[in-house]
Amino acid sequence: MDITQFVAGSIGQWKSQRSAHHMIFGHFEAVRSEIEIVALTLDDPAAIALCQAYDLDPSQAVMPFRMSWEGESDWDESEVLKGSTVLVPIPDPNLPNRGRLLRDRGYAETIPAAAHYHITEDGVFVLITEYDRAAAEERIWFVNPNLRFRVSTIKTSDGSGVVTASFSSELRAMTTT
Amino acid sequence: MDITQFVAGSIGQWKSQRSAHHMIFGHFEAVRSEIEIVALTLDDPAAIALCQAYDLDPSQAVMPFRMSWEGESDWDESEVLKGSTVLVPIPDPNLPNRGRLLRDRGYAETIPAAAHYHITEDGVFVLITEYDRAAAEERIWFVNPNLRFRVSTIKTSDGSGVVTASFSSELRAMTTT
Repeated sequence: MDITQFVAGSIGQWKSQRSAHHMIFGHFEAVRSEIEIVALTLDDPAAIALCQAYDLDPSQAVMPFRMSWEGESDWDESEVLKGSTVLVPIPDPNLPNRGRLLRDRGYAETIPAAAHYHITEDGVFVLITEYDRAAAEERIWFVNPNLRFRVSTIKTSDGSGVVTASFSSELRAMTTT
Repeated sequence: MDITQFVAGSIGQWKSQRSAHHMIFGHFEAVRSEIEIVALTLDDPAAIALCQAYDLDPSQAVMPFRMSWEGESDWDESEVLKGSTVLVPIPDPNLPNRGRLLRDRGYAETIPAAAHYHITEDGVFVLITEYDRAAAEERIWFVNPNLRFRVSTIKTSDGSGVVTASFSSELRAMTTT
């Protein structure tokens, strides 16, 4: 599994169930959402602009994509969780299955964030994002071509404490023909 | 990470939050439980009996342990989920970080089950148990010495469908001194 295969397998529409465990108080949160992942071309203006924002050469990019989501949490059913982000993988030219993943907004904060990824021998895509006061780690893998799992942790930036752990099961939405 | 280190790191008391995703109907289930993992000696009668039940030489066993749990689900708060099982790792003499894990009852069914484990280069303990009509896969890893994650899937035995996916975060219970 390399980054090209990983992104190619992710293109499509997904129904997500996400459970968050808020560790300090032992709270559970349940989120249902629809996720759409769309491939962008290498000359897509949003992908090029993102590379330029990080002072990176757009020719280093592979498989840029846009991810959009819309869902609701059982903590506040009146609030719609909705968003969209452009993501651009930049493989490391020297290290196999490692690189950076640029995006135009982070998951945990709304400032632009550069994340580092690697893909394990076991086929798990691991993404680590450092923020000012927190770090996020995501582990994403395919159970089969139509089911992805995603385990996310938000840690304090010194790495000592895990604040939130969450698990998503993402099932490919059946296309209606 | 080898089986000895994995079991040694697991000994103790844990507070578990478990979220199950019942995939077909998109249901969420939340389970809170206390888990206790106690080391057994190699000459423990329960460990020896378990080896004998599988026609295996008890001298092949390493780090037998007993796991007990007590908890409740938000699906039926009147029902107490409670149980205890003896587990005996039997490393494969020829393959590093692979072997069998004997136990005196399975998670998904109550018949004795022999499971196969391996530990990935990434330190994930992967356990696969085949039942008559289903297969269970568990992936367990340490985020830090006091926090374990566990992702479990129950599949139909032909491997085609995932029926249930669940995620546990297991936080080491603070000892009162």
